[in-house]
Amino acid sequence: MNFSYKNIDDAYDQIKNKIIKTPLITNDYINKQLESNIFFKLENLQTTGSFKLRGASYKISKISKEEKNNGVVAYSSGNHAQAVAYASLQQEIPSKIIMPNNAPNIKIANTKKYKAEVILYDPNIESRENIGEKIAKEENRTLIRPYDDIDIVAGQGTAGKEITDQLNKKSIVPDIYLCCCGGGGLIAGTSTYLKYKFPNINSYSVEPYGFDDTKKSLESSKIIANERGFNSICDAIITPQPGKLTFPINIQSLSGGLVVSDSEVKQTIKFLAEHLKIIVEPGGAVAATAVLNSKINIKNKTVVVMISGGNIDLTMFNSL
Amino acid sequence: MNFSYKNIDDAYDQIKNKIIKTPLITNDYINKQLESNIFFKLENLQTTGSFKLRGASYKISKISKEEKNNGVVAYSSGNHAQAVAYASLQQEIPSKIIMPNNAPNIKIANTKKYKAEVILYDPNIESRENIGEKIAKEENRTLIRPYDDIDIVAGQGTAGKEITDQLNKKSIVPDIYLCCCGGGGLIAGTSTYLKYKFPNINSYSVEPYGFDDTKKSLESSKIIANERGFNSICDAIITPQPGKLTFPINIQSLSGGLVVSDSEVKQTIKFLAEHLKIIVEPGGAVAATAVLNSKINIKNKTVVVMISGGNIDLTMFNSL
Repeated sequence: MNFSYKNIDDAYDQIKNKIIKTPLITNDYINKQLESNIFFKLENLQTTGSFKLRGASYKISKISKEEKNNGVVAYSSGNHAQAVAYASLQQEIPSKIIMPNNAPNIKIANTKKYKAEVILYDPNIESRENIGEKIAKEENRTLIRPYDDIDIVAGQGTAGKEITDQLNKKSIVPDIYLCCCGGGGLIAGTSTYLKYKFPNINSYSVEPYGFDDTKKSLESSKIIANERGFNSICDAIITPQPGKLTFPINIQSLSGGLVVSDSEVKQTIKFLAEHLKIIVEPGGAVAATAVLNSKINIKNKTVVVMISGGNIDLTMFNSL
Repeated sequence: MNFSYKNIDDAYDQIKNKIIKTPLITNDYINKQLESNIFFKLENLQTTGSFKLRGASYKISKISKEEKNNGVVAYSSGNHAQAVAYASLQQEIPSKIIMPNNAPNIKIANTKKYKAEVILYDPNIESRENIGEKIAKEENRTLIRPYDDIDIVAGQGTAGKEITDQLNKKSIVPDIYLCCCGGGGLIAGTSTYLKYKFPNINSYSVEPYGFDDTKKSLESSKIIANERGFNSICDAIITPQPGKLTFPINIQSLSGGLVVSDSEVKQTIKFLAEHLKIIVEPGGAVAATAVLNSKINIKNKTVVVMISGGNIDLTMFNSL
């Protein structure tokens, strides 16, 4: 497989008018408190509330006219679902989305709001991959995978291209990049682009406790699945193991992995609301959590922190 | 008095490294729903959580070294308080801030966090102006007024300069500008700059019901105070009457005034949290409220909406 910054530049040319160039912000007070220079990439402000619109828009823009007529199908815990539904709506394609019946209400409601047909399944007894592939075959729909697809990775990587442009404008060279990691599509794309433009950058995956499969896999240089029996509030990034396509990219571009706890994530969501006035979902807050809980030494360093999504049920947000 | 875009350009040169260039964002879904092209200026993401840091930074940067040694004093319901405290901390000046004892907890706590000495007063029986002027005189401190000061208006106007730059980059010409209005400093500065760069723009003040003194004053071409006996959750913008310095500017640059209700503002705060993933305080949400409640016809128009601050107690936020 051949994947480089060029795939991402191509993707950006295709989707730049379909997505928002999200802000990269810094906060003087937080920087002083942490004695570092932190830039937050706000993909929670992306249309559909997460970065996932980037990959979905790109993938869907690349399928043939005939494939578009037959419609698409996707499986997702929620953010990819909303993104595929929205990109399909933009490009006038029928979409069918398979979601777990325990997904956050806001994600299911939004996916329906974007006119997708939603099919709920029980994640304890059914496999979303099997349902997705069965529907794709029976109904001749194109399956839009959440991360193990080169176009999806390229699309998500466009967030890294924007970060690069935004830092270049200020003549800032980052030392560290921290990004959440579920299947690994976002971090694979963005870290590849950042490493190309800033060769000395060190990028790290951040995962919730019990779901640190990428960290373990990086340490062992092979794909290792999570042990069973763990739970996390970080619904967006609790995938069973690194992607077959994303892991070989990540092993090239990442310097290691960090782990955070759910209670640290909860504190971070509150901190980001109070200090940055933004709403961040648990999975989208793990990179900021790593910074706020000294999971890595950032003193006097310039650090880019990915805030990947904001689709949290407001009832849960309030309970924090 | 001579006030123009030049004052704002001068202010921006002085403060641009002390403030954040806040994002101007749009949301495809909201645009489709409202059949218009809306750009939200996110001053809630400004350091200290509101635009007020702009004016405070500029004013404080202009006082003499001797005046700095004697320290500053300010009165404010909260956002100007935090801004003066923070700008003083940045520029290593002692600050004393007079705040009403019913100000939101977050605003009092933050002002103290920024190392200001906070003096609480009872707004029902005492005049903040009197307390402020007494302290200024007795302690030889420079009084940093919240809006009736040409440098404060110029500083707040820098948000308008940023909006102009951000729109120009996309070759977008706005039709309408909506901005909250308390004492009128922010809207005076920003609308002056926008009118200079976009001569055909129509700018409107937005105020809470019972506190629409600027609307009434614009209609009568003279300063009219609010009647007594009203209340509003929009603590940041419930000033008794238009500023003596700001109103003559606003009568030149505004096309009229709009009014929103507290219950509409509450719905808007919830909407902005769900759809834009941002936390906005009541006073900061009135311009967005006008758009979402059709207080003005925006169909097929390009509209700039000021989101001026995000300092809301999270307990109040949760109650919405």
